[in-house]
Amino acid sequence: MGLQIQHLLGLEGVSREDITLILDTADTFYEVLQREIKVVPTLRGKTIVNLFYESSTRTRISFELAEKRLSASPLNFSASTSSVNKGESLRDTIRNIEAMKIDMVVVRHSSAGVPSFLTQCTNAVIVNAGDGLHEHPTQALLDMMTIRSKLGKLEGLKVAIIGDIFHSRVARSNAWGMKTMGMDVVLCGPPTLLPQHRESLGVPVTDNLDEALDGADVIMLLRLQLERQSSGAFPSIREYRDRYGLDLDKLASLPESVLIMHPGPINRGIELSSNVADGPNSVILEQVTNGVAVRMAVLYLLGGGENV
Amino acid sequence: MGLQIQHLLGLEGVSREDITLILDTADTFYEVLQREIKVVPTLRGKTIVNLFYESSTRTRISFELAEKRLSASPLNFSASTSSVNKGESLRDTIRNIEAMKIDMVVVRHSSAGVPSFLTQCTNAVIVNAGDGLHEHPTQALLDMMTIRSKLGKLEGLKVAIIGDIFHSRVARSNAWGMKTMGMDVVLCGPPTLLPQHRESLGVPVTDNLDEALDGADVIMLLRLQLERQSSGAFPSIREYRDRYGLDLDKLASLPESVLIMHPGPINRGIELSSNVADGPNSVILEQVTNGVAVRMAVLYLLGGGENV
Amino acid sequence: MGLQIQHLLGLEGVSREDITLILDTADTFYEVLQREIKVVPTLRGKTIVNLFYESSTRTRISFELAEKRLSASPLNFSASTSSVNKGESLRDTIRNIEAMKIDMVVVRHSSAGVPSFLTQCTNAVIVNAGDGLHEHPTQALLDMMTIRSKLGKLEGLKVAIIGDIFHSRVARSNAWGMKTMGMDVVLCGPPTLLPQHRESLGVPVTDNLDEALDGADVIMLLRLQLERQSSGAFPSIREYRDRYGLDLDKLASLPESVLIMHPGPINRGIELSSNVADGPNSVILEQVTNGVAVRMAVLYLLGGGENV
Repeated sequence: MGLQIQHLLGLEGVSREDITLILDTADTFYEVLQREIKVVPTLRGKTIVNLFYESSTRTRISFELAEKRLSASPLNFSASTSSVNKGESLRDTIRNIEAMKIDMVVVRHSSAGVPSFLTQCTNAVIVNAGDGLHEHPTQALLDMMTIRSKLGKLEGLKVAIIGDIFHSRVARSNAWGMKTMGMDVVLCGPPTLLPQHRESLGVPVTDNLDEALDGADVIMLLRLQLERQSSGAFPSIREYRDRYGLDLDKLASLPESVLIMHPGPINRGIELSSNVADGPNSVILEQVTNGVAVRMAVLYLLGGGENV
Repeated sequence: MGLQIQHLLGLEGVSREDITLILDTADTFYEVLQREIKVVPTLRGKTIVNLFYESSTRTRISFELAEKRLSASPLNFSASTSSVNKGESLRDTIRNIEAMKIDMVVVRHSSAGVPSFLTQCTNAVIVNAGDGLHEHPTQALLDMMTIRSKLGKLEGLKVAIIGDIFHSRVARSNAWGMKTMGMDVVLCGPPTLLPQHRESLGVPVTDNLDEALDGADVIMLLRLQLERQSSGAFPSIREYRDRYGLDLDKLASLPESVLIMHPGPINRGIELSSNVADGPNSVILEQVTNGVAVRMAVLYLLGGGENV
Repeated sequence: MGLQIQHLLGLEGVSREDITLILDTADTFYEVLQREIKVVPTLRGKTIVNLFYESSTRTRISFELAEKRLSASPLNFSASTSSVNKGESLRDTIRNIEAMKIDMVVVRHSSAGVPSFLTQCTNAVIVNAGDGLHEHPTQALLDMMTIRSKLGKLEGLKVAIIGDIFHSRVARSNAWGMKTMGMDVVLCGPPTLLPQHRESLGVPVTDNLDEALDGADVIMLLRLQLERQSSGAFPSIREYRDRYGLDLDKLASLPESVLIMHPGPINRGIELSSNVADGPNSVILEQVTNGVAVRMAVLYLLGGGENV
């Protein structure tokens, strides 16, 4: 049986069955990534366009690797070299791409809702690789895959997500997905970096770090956009680090089994001290590896595959 | 039997037999593009360099897709990242590329004549993807393919090409190719956007839209380069739209079977109103699809293939 | 038997056996490049990241071609679009890339020592494609391959390397490699463009061109970075050309069999007159062809291959 969803626009509203099928499939592809030859022929002859209107080396490379390892043919299309400069509308761009007989489009855009809009303009399968402040669903899926593989389950676990919640599509996608999977999510950050309507994500929100960490099985630190300081969103980097950064001292008071996660790239010495980032609790590099496996699973399942 | 030409530099001087062979071959590849698996192994092991000195997402993507669907190995080389910055001459660039044992070069350049010059420096097959104000032959071929597939023939049909004729390599290539195929071409635009020597293209040229549209089976609108207005080439965008743009009102006075074409990207509301661009007479997206098929045909035939 | 080295960081310290194995293997791949189908399946399923922090079209294309012709899957990562902009450290970048299960990394960087540093951060195989003023080993290998194929041997031959020795990683790699192969190397240039510690490369250094050319079997001209003139490194381009450039007059006084080499791109009329660059003694385009073969050999051998 395949997925209920036809596109991956976000995790809001995606069923537990669909998320479970993606994670199970990703576990299978993870095994493929351990082999000497990491390529499977499942999407041979399919063309996937990577339509990146925001620069993002890691996410783009991770998708491109996933595509190549499924034997699909990726085509990169980035904003700076596109007809965007000639004033072409997004709708015309996507309809032109579709007319070239494309099978799937992976899209990143600075405006929330662009992936959803594209589904109205084309019959191609759309995968959201991050849209504005809305969602970044494959990141949340790789986060859940990492937790499940390390702790053996998702249901009943408590996850504390710490940092710039307001600007984080990673936090939003995880909030939706983890709630669906029966996890206990708490969002935490300085008051100026929390959503104005704290109840909007349907999970508890606090500016008290101790409260957030209490009983947490997993701590996910978010990247601080340093350029936001000048806009007054937080008083100083030092204060942020002291109050919300994680170092060995704070880690010492937590259970030995706690997982430390970060979507990367890390500001070492701010969100995380280096000895925590590289320490035994950190699964940050596993997240990167799992990212390729999860993206293979999403592309495979949306591209017409069923259980592997 | 293969093509008489060894390179595709333009349609001026290309025989009716060659154009017909390309269009027939493109029809065959069009069928391939309707399949689930759109890849054929005909150019496996061949390396094609896409040498783009002018940015052009659509044309580059269309060629890259054509190359991949023929199983060739494309290599992208764009001006901004090239040795051009180090002052290397075009001749040294192409001879270096050739020394790496390249089979074909697809070139776009802002100077007319560059593709022809390259044939003197290298033994690789050269395909012109647009050179200055000179020619854009694959665009004209895809236009003819689209007309032939919609109207069943080319000979005897009347085509009106409307807009900035002076700066249009699309108009020039179509004028040469369509005349060769026995079509009746008329070029039309504001006096300031017409060639100074009106007879130079060997087809009638007029600034009177009604005269151009009279009896036309096909209307091709060209993209208006909006930045030319500041240089005084036309008085105002509104006046251009009123006099040379196509909307439902003007369309109502034309035969029901007339085809509306545009090389894209469209300035909606200027050359074409949106309801015409997306209406039943428009074949603009078919042009895009056919573009991939025509480029597959050109690369296949110049790469040594014969009738498919 | 395979290589003793596990990475190619430079030619300093690389054994004569290893260099010979690479050159022998490159000769075999050279034969592959003469075939109609230039692709071999030896690295199928391997992923190679081209990590270019300095722009370099020729070297990147040469590596990318080598990778594709070995059936590896290349992934391009250039500085301008990378997380470098987000302040990610080189170490985090490489560890993230490795976590995506990459087999090899080809790296170019403006700082000497970066490739060596990367070997401490990752288990992937590292190939230096040029690091600061340090080394550019594949260039020196292709130079030796070219000399050996033209003159039948390396040992005992005299090579004069002329130009901006101080800034040349090509000169440094050739000095190390050629000495190892029993060749007689002399470095020559204007006093301001010679290393301060002339003995540091272990080969003779002179500012006297006649002395350098005396008895030379091979003359390698280096590219003059024209932008260095403004910094006072040499008085005038005309004076440089007159004293250190090679034209037909100077060539006339040399043995008929002398080889003329240049790593490209050439400043025609400065380091070399055009009639010398394109004349019968020049093997400059052979160098380019051999570059692809040498890079195939390096990637093949470091990727686990043995004698072909």
